[in-house]
Amino acid sequence: MSLSPMQKAPLDVPADLRPRYEQNFAEMTRGTGRLMMMAADQKVEHLNDDFYGPGIAEDDGDPEHLFRIASRARIGVMATQLGLIARYGEDYPGIRYVVKLNSKTHLIPTKMGDPDSRQWLSFEQLDRFRESSSLPILGVGYTIYPGSRAEPEMLREAARLVFEAHRRGLLAILWAYPRGAAVSDERDPHLIAGAAGLAACLGADFVKVNEPKAKDGRNAAALREAVRAAGRTRLICAGGKEESVPEFLARLHAQIHEAGAAGNATGRNIHQRPLSEAIAFCNAISAITLDGATAEQAVALYHKELSASSTTG
Amino acid sequence: MSLSPMQKAPLDVPADLRPRYEQNFAEMTRGTGRLMMMAADQKVEHLNDDFYGPGIAEDDGDPEHLFRIASRARIGVMATQLGLIARYGEDYPGIRYVVKLNSKTHLIPTKMGDPDSRQWLSFEQLDRFRESSSLPILGVGYTIYPGSRAEPEMLREAARLVFEAHRRGLLAILWAYPRGAAVSDERDPHLIAGAAGLAACLGADFVKVNEPKAKDGRNAAALREAVRAAGRTRLICAGGKEESVPEFLARLHAQIHEAGAAGNATGRNIHQRPLSEAIAFCNAISAITLDGATAEQAVALYHKELSASSTTG
Amino acid sequence: MSLSPMQKAPLDVPADLRPRYEQNFAEMTRGTGRLMMMAADQKVEHLNDDFYGPGIAEDDGDPEHLFRIASRARIGVMATQLGLIARYGEDYPGIRYVVKLNSKTHLIPTKMGDPDSRQWLSFEQLDRFRESSSLPILGVGYTIYPGSRAEPEMLREAARLVFEAHRRGLLAILWAYPRGAAVSDERDPHLIAGAAGLAACLGADFVKVNEPKAKDGRNAAALREAVRAAGRTRLICAGGKEESVPEFLARLHAQIHEAGAAGNATGRNIHQRPLSEAIAFCNAISAITLDGATAEQAVALYHKELSASSTTG
Amino acid sequence: MSLSPMQKAPLDVPADLRPRYEQNFAEMTRGTGRLMMMAADQKVEHLNDDFYGPGIAEDDGDPEHLFRIASRARIGVMATQLGLIARYGEDYPGIRYVVKLNSKTHLIPTKMGDPDSRQWLSFEQLDRFRESSSLPILGVGYTIYPGSRAEPEMLREAARLVFEAHRRGLLAILWAYPRGAAVSDERDPHLIAGAAGLAACLGADFVKVNEPKAKDGRNAAALREAVRAAGRTRLICAGGKEESVPEFLARLHAQIHEAGAAGNATGRNIHQRPLSEAIAFCNAISAITLDGATAEQAVALYHKELSASSTTG
Amino acid sequence: MSLSPMQKAPLDVPADLRPRYEQNFAEMTRGTGRLMMMAADQKVEHLNDDFYGPGIAEDDGDPEHLFRIASRARIGVMATQLGLIARYGEDYPGIRYVVKLNSKTHLIPTKMGDPDSRQWLSFEQLDRFRESSSLPILGVGYTIYPGSRAEPEMLREAARLVFEAHRRGLLAILWAYPRGAAVSDERDPHLIAGAAGLAACLGADFVKVNEPKAKDGRNAAALREAVRAAGRTRLICAGGKEESVPEFLARLHAQIHEAGAAGNATGRNIHQRPLSEAIAFCNAISAITLDGATAEQAVALYHKELSASSTTG
Repeated sequence: MSLSPMQKAPLDVPADLRPRYEQNFAEMTRGTGRLMMMAADQKVEHLNDDFYGPGIAEDDGDPEHLFRIASRARIGVMATQLGLIARYGEDYPGIRYVVKLNSKTHLIPTKMGDPDSRQWLSFEQLDRFRESSSLPILGVGYTIYPGSRAEPEMLREAARLVFEAHRRGLLAILWAYPRGAAVSDERDPHLIAGAAGLAACLGADFVKVNEPKAKDGRNAAALREAVRAAGRTRLICAGGKEESVPEFLARLHAQIHEAGAAGNATGRNIHQRPLSEAIAFCNAISAITLDGATAEQAVALYHKELSASSTTG
Repeated sequence: MSLSPMQKAPLDVPADLRPRYEQNFAEMTRGTGRLMMMAADQKVEHLNDDFYGPGIAEDDGDPEHLFRIASRARIGVMATQLGLIARYGEDYPGIRYVVKLNSKTHLIPTKMGDPDSRQWLSFEQLDRFRESSSLPILGVGYTIYPGSRAEPEMLREAARLVFEAHRRGLLAILWAYPRGAAVSDERDPHLIAGAAGLAACLGADFVKVNEPKAKDGRNAAALREAVRAAGRTRLICAGGKEESVPEFLARLHAQIHEAGAAGNATGRNIHQRPLSEAIAFCNAISAITLDGATAEQAVALYHKELSASSTTG
Repeated sequence: MSLSPMQKAPLDVPADLRPRYEQNFAEMTRGTGRLMMMAADQKVEHLNDDFYGPGIAEDDGDPEHLFRIASRARIGVMATQLGLIARYGEDYPGIRYVVKLNSKTHLIPTKMGDPDSRQWLSFEQLDRFRESSSLPILGVGYTIYPGSRAEPEMLREAARLVFEAHRRGLLAILWAYPRGAAVSDERDPHLIAGAAGLAACLGADFVKVNEPKAKDGRNAAALREAVRAAGRTRLICAGGKEESVPEFLARLHAQIHEAGAAGNATGRNIHQRPLSEAIAFCNAISAITLDGATAEQAVALYHKELSASSTTG
Repeated sequence: MSLSPMQKAPLDVPADLRPRYEQNFAEMTRGTGRLMMMAADQKVEHLNDDFYGPGIAEDDGDPEHLFRIASRARIGVMATQLGLIARYGEDYPGIRYVVKLNSKTHLIPTKMGDPDSRQWLSFEQLDRFRESSSLPILGVGYTIYPGSRAEPEMLREAARLVFEAHRRGLLAILWAYPRGAAVSDERDPHLIAGAAGLAACLGADFVKVNEPKAKDGRNAAALREAVRAAGRTRLICAGGKEESVPEFLARLHAQIHEAGAAGNATGRNIHQRPLSEAIAFCNAISAITLDGATAEQAVALYHKELSASSTTG
Repeated sequence: MSLSPMQKAPLDVPADLRPRYEQNFAEMTRGTGRLMMMAADQKVEHLNDDFYGPGIAEDDGDPEHLFRIASRARIGVMATQLGLIARYGEDYPGIRYVVKLNSKTHLIPTKMGDPDSRQWLSFEQLDRFRESSSLPILGVGYTIYPGSRAEPEMLREAARLVFEAHRRGLLAILWAYPRGAAVSDERDPHLIAGAAGLAACLGADFVKVNEPKAKDGRNAAALREAVRAAGRTRLICAGGKEESVPEFLARLHAQIHEAGAAGNATGRNIHQRPLSEAIAFCNAISAITLDGATAEQAVALYHKELSASSTTG
């Protein structure tokens, strides 16, 4: 079977590593071309705000919760920082990982300063980790903030990160969030399309953006401009803050099946739930993303799994 | 046939690579010494503003549009970021490429901060890409903003980029735009001449400047100072915002045949049109740039090609 | 006997160095999994303020005081700068060392500028020192200030420092103090938990935080959130300013036995005392940290040792 | 014949390259120990302001004018940027070159920001150019702005540049201009003497300063302090803005024969003239600098050469 | 004879270079453990202010004056920039040198900006110079400004400089001057003690501080805190501005014999005198520093030498 243009390795992947890239792509997307990414980088990005407090399951206070979910639910990859992977990976060898290579805290609000985030580890260090850990690391992640005064350095790091990932047959995922004093509306559909196109120029395999806010309220339709601007770079949306299961799944279905998004990146909506709920919710998401289920089918699956787990639990 | 001084390799090209440099020059200019460059770096520089909206062809929303045009029209080279080349290049091996090695978004307006733009990939990375891609990469591009507070670092990167390009037999094209709080009139003819001369001192093979605005309205005449200041570095003008086909071609003709410009760099005026129009327009530009056609001849060619394509299309 | 998950080497420790890491961990924690660290980096962090003046023993004016204490008391490790270790280490070969690799003075108050602190020596230099000194260097230390404008560079240095320490079988301890114009309450329990989780994502083996201040006054209880957020990264609290022996020991006992802290890092409370008092105080701390003594038992030990030393002294 | 202390190679020149250094010194000073340097770096430093406009010969608009003058007049060296040398050098192999390794534009006035200028090319790149070009490159040049906020980085680059030049047997010339918000009078004689002494501490072979302005109007006398402060580093004065030939030559004579300057660095006063005048002017300058002619003899030579060229021209 | 702890090489000196370090220490201190350092870095630090003007001997205008003094007087080492050493060293091979590796001008007053000073040459370059020059270079020097906003980078450079000096068996001397907007009283005794302790943590062999100003006027007594805080790092005081010979020598005697300083670093007070006076003054200083003479004995020696030189001169 021939690969679609979006599945083929880009030309910065050396010839001898093209099969590995394509295999990594297939594993990450579970053979569907669509990605269900469990985004688990918030312990840095949001400190403990997403992990403790009213409405957050007590389970979530312990970082191992993330690994418990990822190891039992049906996801594509879990993206998190190398420090956590190094500490828990030995006990969770079945998880496929994306190493998030930069992260910052949210302590400095945008009104006090433009966002900036540096690459933590070099690729030479990552290579040594891949070797010493033997874990299935399929790709790397990096956040850019177009419009920040630190944009020049972040674009440089991002371009090099994508290139070096491809040199190793790894995939590269960019989180692209326009932000800074010069950005008046972070969720303007046209701006988000620009960020998606920028990620394509940087060579990203996947770009994670925030869902745009359309003036007419038709956010999924507004997302189409961005999906198009990204070209062969596949676009996925951030999950955002917690909301009800049916609302979340309906929104996700529209992103993928109306706007053409290539999957999802979900964090808080998953891990803030107790383990069994989190697993059920992951599986409902994957039903839409990977299997083409309707939102209603996914909601039904969620409730079925939950009641099964409460019976057996 | 002996080469003109402008066609000969500069002395920072090693002896064994002089033939390659001269061949790259000949290919890029299609043997004419003049350059028709399709500038396609706007997905970063202008985000999605140039690719979507009123007056912009729907085709332009997809990055592949750029490659479709460049592969079918008669151009010298297409200049764009490596990420796009890596993703689409395999399907468009006939395009000759200039890799634009730095780019920034336009999100921070000049009044909020001086422009800054860093080199994305190193030459070592570019070398590996040339090898893994086997694409005809003839040169590299880089934008400098003289007058910006970031000027020292940009001049340093530009000088090294030109030098390293020549070391490999590649050509180097500098985009030179005076800009920043200290620059009151970006299109002052004398200032643009200064930018052209600066690019010559940096060793550029081609310098792309904005067309100056003359007080007496004779812009092409005002451009002569810059052509002269550039010396053996060949000067080309940016195409600017969209305007009517006859106006554009008349202006281009004056730049080349009155002021002595060595070609053109055109972006939005090309890709914002539907595919067949874009191709016809490219070919009309090339008639002036490469064949010495008059503006009227070029307009006629444009209409002829368009009607042919609408017949066959 | 199998190791607990917290005692096992993380996966960035190469296979051949895992035994050394585990031995270093066992030595540092004296086989208990808990750490009694004598923090002795204040000659830079606080200049001479902690070493001279009313209420400070005259002994403390001489840097050798630190080494005298550490060599005679029962501690896990002493953490200080390489310059001091190089100068005194030959005479104190029995001390186990953590090399504190960054430090800053306190001269610029937070209201005049966000804190910033750079890594002094490279790991290549540290390797050469380990070889030339033959001292038992078990780990390295580094301070991060989340919320400072210099956070991006500090997180980068910290991540690399942890990684490179592990590559050598060494342990890495992060001092994590949220600080800067954007931080309104440095001792907010939730924020401190965030800093602890951040250190876990950076891969730290131990994280040293300030004890939180709970609104209800129950600081030890408030610390639990942080212990939990740190996961398998072990949390220890800074000793803080001098206070009475019973108060200090009671607080320490609560941190460890109520909140689950994995030890303590104490500096001023130790070295500002005359030598014999300092030793007795260290031993009382270790009774709680390493032996599970009650606060009362530890106070009794302190007085017993003091009276013994005044008899023999 | 033994060399004077000022002619001997400094001790950072390796033993095997001392003969080359001394030969470079002899060639650069045409065996006199005095330097006639044609300073031709203004296309960056002043953009096109020095090359086009009222009172400037039309010849000067073309960069090749600089090479035509330097190849036909009697000068020691021409100092300019590598980009121009690479482009024109093959046609002007008889010129001896100093590669000016940093340059900035004058677009940001001092009142808007302190001056900053970075080294463009590395010495490794320069080495490759010397090899690929086979041109007689005798030395390198670099501008420092003492008193600027960027001083620390410029002093560092300058010290390394001098050192690396000497390592290759090349000479190093520093342009030293105190400038910035902290500098109230750039031409204060005492300050200029300080800049000259600073250049000596940086190891420069020649230091180019602006002629001081003495309160009593006796500028040449005021220059003596600087000549003395420079010690064995030879001092030359910048030529400054255009003035009449007799005035210029009288001033130059006083600088050399009254104040003890070791030559001159002249730019605009030369190249803003038509070719034949420029050549005659260079030769008049060299008569004073290299031959010890009086100002009157030099003026006479200038007029003699001019009338000869107008006869033959 | 066994060495005192202060004379022994620290443990960052490799075993095979310990004899060289100890020999360098012995030579620098002329076997006494105390240092008479002629500080001659002011041509950068103070430009020409210390070398020309009322009350300054005319001799001082020529940099060679420094070498003439150092070669004829009894000093331990002369500290100055590499550029001067390279230029004059061949004629003054008998001087022992400390290469001052950073320096800045005083043009920016503290109220306009915090002080910053970068290392000029790398250790690789210094190694090559030691080889090419064959001069007796015993150590290196570096100035830190604790409290400046540039402190993090200076502490990093200083720590690495000390380490690399020791790796080569060289000594490292730190000039430590708290300064910047955050420092209200640069000569506060407690602050100076802090700077001395900081230098010890950086591993310095000697630390040069300004003499503190005590509230009770007993400056020498106030210095004791700093001597103590420096531990095994030996403390010397800067000579300060010119004052009368007896006053200077009495102050020096108190620093050494009352406060326990390990020598002196004197600059202006030496070189602003005519050669014979300068030599006599150096020798008087050395009588106190190296021989334990009283201030009165040293004054007598000064007058005796002066009258001898005026007789023979």
